[in-house]
Amino acid sequence: MLTAETIAEARRAVRTARGQGRRVGLVPTMGALHEGHLSLMAAARAECEFVAVSIFVNPIQFGPNEDYQRYPRPIERDLAACREAGVDLVFAPSAGEMYRQERLTSVVVRGMTEGLCGRQRPGHFEGVTTVVAKLFNILDPDAAYFGEKDAQQALVLRKMVVDLDFPIAMRFCPTVREADGLALSSRNAYLSADERERALCLSRGLEAGRRMIAEGRTEAAAIAAAMRRIIEAAEPEKIDYIEIVDPHTLGPVARVAGPVLMATAVRIGRTRLIDNILVDSQGNKIRMNDLFL
Amino acid sequence: MLTAETIAEARRAVRTARGQGRRVGLVPTMGALHEGHLSLMAAARAECEFVAVSIFVNPIQFGPNEDYQRYPRPIERDLAACREAGVDLVFAPSAGEMYRQERLTSVVVRGMTEGLCGRQRPGHFEGVTTVVAKLFNILDPDAAYFGEKDAQQALVLRKMVVDLDFPIAMRFCPTVREADGLALSSRNAYLSADERERALCLSRGLEAGRRMIAEGRTEAAAIAAAMRRIIEAAEPEKIDYIEIVDPHTLGPVARVAGPVLMATAVRIGRTRLIDNILVDSQGNKIRMNDLFL
Repeated sequence: MLTAETIAEARRAVRTARGQGRRVGLVPTMGALHEGHLSLMAAARAECEFVAVSIFVNPIQFGPNEDYQRYPRPIERDLAACREAGVDLVFAPSAGEMYRQERLTSVVVRGMTEGLCGRQRPGHFEGVTTVVAKLFNILDPDAAYFGEKDAQQALVLRKMVVDLDFPIAMRFCPTVREADGLALSSRNAYLSADERERALCLSRGLEAGRRMIAEGRTEAAAIAAAMRRIIEAAEPEKIDYIEIVDPHTLGPVARVAGPVLMATAVRIGRTRLIDNILVDSQGNKIRMNDLFL
Repeated sequence: MLTAETIAEARRAVRTARGQGRRVGLVPTMGALHEGHLSLMAAARAECEFVAVSIFVNPIQFGPNEDYQRYPRPIERDLAACREAGVDLVFAPSAGEMYRQERLTSVVVRGMTEGLCGRQRPGHFEGVTTVVAKLFNILDPDAAYFGEKDAQQALVLRKMVVDLDFPIAMRFCPTVREADGLALSSRNAYLSADERERALCLSRGLEAGRRMIAEGRTEAAAIAAAMRRIIEAAEPEKIDYIEIVDPHTLGPVARVAGPVLMATAVRIGRTRLIDNILVDSQGNKIRMNDLFL
């Protein structure tokens, strides 16, 4: 496994692989790798002869009062996990390498970034789209792999790729969950035992919403209200949002008449957790990839 | 010479060339090709085994009261000029091909786009950076060629390339002028005989400013005032700006103590003309490429 800390080294490694006719798959991460990330690497491994993983805690996607400083950075463990997963290249640049001079350029996706997490995290998605555009230009992948867990991020990045004509296939992989339903997240490491238990309210609330749709309920407001009751029962510090939106626009729907994304962001202790579920109008779980067939 | 009207065809042509190990040079244009564009093609031809020219009058870089509709589109003459210049591929998409669905994504360069032409043309540079990012992703060039004539555009695009890590060498070629000094522009076609004569005020004003620097004057305000007197003598309909700026930031300088960009935008009749000259602190003309050595 190659590791590159500079853009120049990373480009060289990918160019060599391309010169050998290998298909390049990229898994962009912020490290603190868990089974969710490993499933992305496995998906890349299955489709590509050269798998690159980037590990970069991207400062420009964190707000001033967010957890950039304390975000976990277990680099040795991450490198071992990549090696174990058969990754070909890990690109782990410093912030100074990625932002070498005063940056004036951003990639912005309007509309889709304004609701859901965008409302509480102004500038977050601009930081995400900008760094992913940079990673795409540095690592020149044929395909890139993202988790459905960060649904808004995935859908915003797909829109960026379509609008800017990046020649990259976007692949979305299902959220990986603990046995009790908690969606894996690097931020779960912040949770105390009590918080870990209360954090189950996200997946339970979403599943309750899904069941209502499966039972034929269509009024988004009533479904969201039922989800809210379940989430509130866990006494979260704050509910940032509980929403039922059109997965193509991320705008709210009044009635469930096609695929919907049910999404929630909740603060448990000091930790902000997000989860979502994508369902068709019958309440069946569907894959994000299938939205774009 | 290949011509492509679709993104898919253009990609195929470039991939074939790349597969043959050919270096790809791109000259992005809005058509209505003149000697300035031909000099860009010649520069590309000298450095690259495969030269692509895009011809696309990009709607999103025109303001609502600008000349998008009447901008000249002599496509047959342009294709003949490209053939004559030894171009390998002309990519001439429709607006519908370039913007196939509602676009939500933009590439924005802040700061450098706010002065000079950015002040009178809000949204213009966002349209330019967005379409050029798209063209870069579609045509995947090793090098791209731009005229120094559109100095702010060139410097903004270079900043975009640096900030977003596009693996593309940016080449800037000198402004081509008529014998009497008028900078070539597709918009010169709009000028009546009287306007054509009055349009000489731009290059004359800039040259007078350059001479003052060569004679040791350093106060930007005095130099700009002298330039203004020359330009006003031609009774232009409006002077949008006459500025002396730092070519790295495009911010105004008070004194000439290093390279400066002297730039002006003037309305002659209904036509908005721009011109500029890049000089060192001794008033010697310098090349934009040399700013970044």
